[in-house]
Amino acid sequence: MAETIVNRRIVMASRPSGMPKPDNFRLEEVEEPREPQGGVRLKTLFFSLDPYMRGRMDEGPSYAEALNPGDVMEGGSVSEVVASAHPGFRPGDIVLGYSGWQTHSVSNGKGLRKLDPALAPVSTALGVLGMPGMTAYVGLHNIGHPKPGETLVVAAASGAVGSAVGQIGKIKGCRVVGMAGGPEKTRYIREELGFDVGLDHRAGDFAERLKAACPNGIDVYFENVGGRVWDLVFPLLNDFARVPVCGLISQYNGFPPRRLDVPAVPELMEDVLVKRLRIQGFIVSDFAVQQNEFLGEMSQWVKEGRVKYREDIVEGLERAAPAFIGLLEGRNFGKLLVRP
Amino acid sequence: MAETIVNRRIVMASRPSGMPKPDNFRLEEVEEPREPQGGVRLKTLFFSLDPYMRGRMDEGPSYAEALNPGDVMEGGSVSEVVASAHPGFRPGDIVLGYSGWQTHSVSNGKGLRKLDPALAPVSTALGVLGMPGMTAYVGLHNIGHPKPGETLVVAAASGAVGSAVGQIGKIKGCRVVGMAGGPEKTRYIREELGFDVGLDHRAGDFAERLKAACPNGIDVYFENVGGRVWDLVFPLLNDFARVPVCGLISQYNGFPPRRLDVPAVPELMEDVLVKRLRIQGFIVSDFAVQQNEFLGEMSQWVKEGRVKYREDIVEGLERAAPAFIGLLEGRNFGKLLVRP
Repeated sequence: MAETIVNRRIVMASRPSGMPKPDNFRLEEVEEPREPQGGVRLKTLFFSLDPYMRGRMDEGPSYAEALNPGDVMEGGSVSEVVASAHPGFRPGDIVLGYSGWQTHSVSNGKGLRKLDPALAPVSTALGVLGMPGMTAYVGLHNIGHPKPGETLVVAAASGAVGSAVGQIGKIKGCRVVGMAGGPEKTRYIREELGFDVGLDHRAGDFAERLKAACPNGIDVYFENVGGRVWDLVFPLLNDFARVPVCGLISQYNGFPPRRLDVPAVPELMEDVLVKRLRIQGFIVSDFAVQQNEFLGEMSQWVKEGRVKYREDIVEGLERAAPAFIGLLEGRNFGKLLVRP
Repeated sequence: MAETIVNRRIVMASRPSGMPKPDNFRLEEVEEPREPQGGVRLKTLFFSLDPYMRGRMDEGPSYAEALNPGDVMEGGSVSEVVASAHPGFRPGDIVLGYSGWQTHSVSNGKGLRKLDPALAPVSTALGVLGMPGMTAYVGLHNIGHPKPGETLVVAAASGAVGSAVGQIGKIKGCRVVGMAGGPEKTRYIREELGFDVGLDHRAGDFAERLKAACPNGIDVYFENVGGRVWDLVFPLLNDFARVPVCGLISQYNGFPPRRLDVPAVPELMEDVLVKRLRIQGFIVSDFAVQQNEFLGEMSQWVKEGRVKYREDIVEGLERAAPAFIGLLEGRNFGKLLVRP
């Protein structure tokens, strides 16, 4: 059994209103209790920063319980077992868990998954081979149904989910149009990831470029942004277009004011009817039963170089909150991780 | 071969703006040409009036070509063959076709389906055993996925589609809540059709009654109305609710003005995401391959009395336009047919 350890962690100091600010977070140092009987003590190697965490900071019902002020910020983590009284884990084991924004944690072992560092870098269990990659995979597979020759459009395309969506779309034979912020990211999705088109959504003529990039309309739009991008994508959807909705990052900090020059609900529903659109929300855990299928296929694609990934690793726990705010502003470039 | 016949027909005189008015239609008498070589001459027994026809009267793209002024109003029809040079049809045969609002027509035989009057009253081929019944059937089967114990809500519930939706829902074990206009129709859906609840959407406290009628929320909402009803249903949708969209009759004559007290698109999309809603438009022909399955199962249900139907038969071609306007205003009671 390990001795008592000082744990450094980030808690939610107060609920943000709109975009989170640094003072909504607080770094704490606490003496971590011993691991529970039959449990393990973990040292965090990486934890994940993901847009959905913004939703947890709001009050009220969502698909997971809201955080309360004083709670440790939640999130997926890759940790090393430093002490174990659990028969399934030994010191030195690397595990995937949900320890959140902290340097150490304890666990009774439930929900931990052992990782094999020989198969892939362990950080990928938080990215391309983890929740974001599986979100891309199950959303396309179960709702997007991409067919060869169809046009697939993806926003936030250099990010953890979007980059996987686009590359799977290429494997499925789609024409893939990605949107990203700035010339560096758009070059990356085109030249490194093999997207057919990379569009800078900050460009002044973005609306025209999007339309020009989709001369045959849009068959699958993988929605993870919402707001203005949705307003521009919507009129380009083809008959029988599918829209898996896994995120609305542009709306997480509040809704845009109502505008009269973009469709309202009745117009949207009219297009749903006339074009026979399918708009469907999902979260990755809805398709948890497909995890083995995902891991098998995606690992193979990564090994073959058909799916590439990029990590944006932030060093130091104290930089987690600013990095998270940057994520909501689109300042990360690739899967955002913290090495605390 | 038959001699020349005077055909009476209703043409679209002019495009309506908003709710159609009588002078958007014109009754014409013309000498009908002989049947085409190898074709048939038909005498209309019934033609169907359906809400979708309002869409055909508008300009611009929809899922079918728009009518132009001077065109005969389109629609499904049941006719008797009065002369035939087609090897597949004999005088006296009853056929389902798409002759529109007229007393006579000719056809090369393509698209005609012979009906067996011994199996069911031939008028049902335009209703419960026709397009409206199949719309209910395929929408529920392919998108609604009703499960025992779930709450199914249907608007326009005494109409051709809605009455079939609700009764199929009961067969599938759902708790069925129907909305209709006025006490006579709500009594009918409850006492005759066996719905669990019948709500009068004209009642002043309709919003509260709808909520009270769905204490466990709504799992399937079969959307054929849109507008205000959608605004009231939407907040009651459960996680994983399915919304087959087959019509938006309240919107066909124009959109309601934008309101600030009902959800706009960003709010709607947020619920799509958080509740993992599935909203999907369809028209019956998207599932044409399921016709035999539908006819087999639905005929059996009708024969067993598990699915009942009601017809609202209008006598006389000259009453077709007023009856159609009445349909858009909800004044019909059951499947609306014209015996011209």
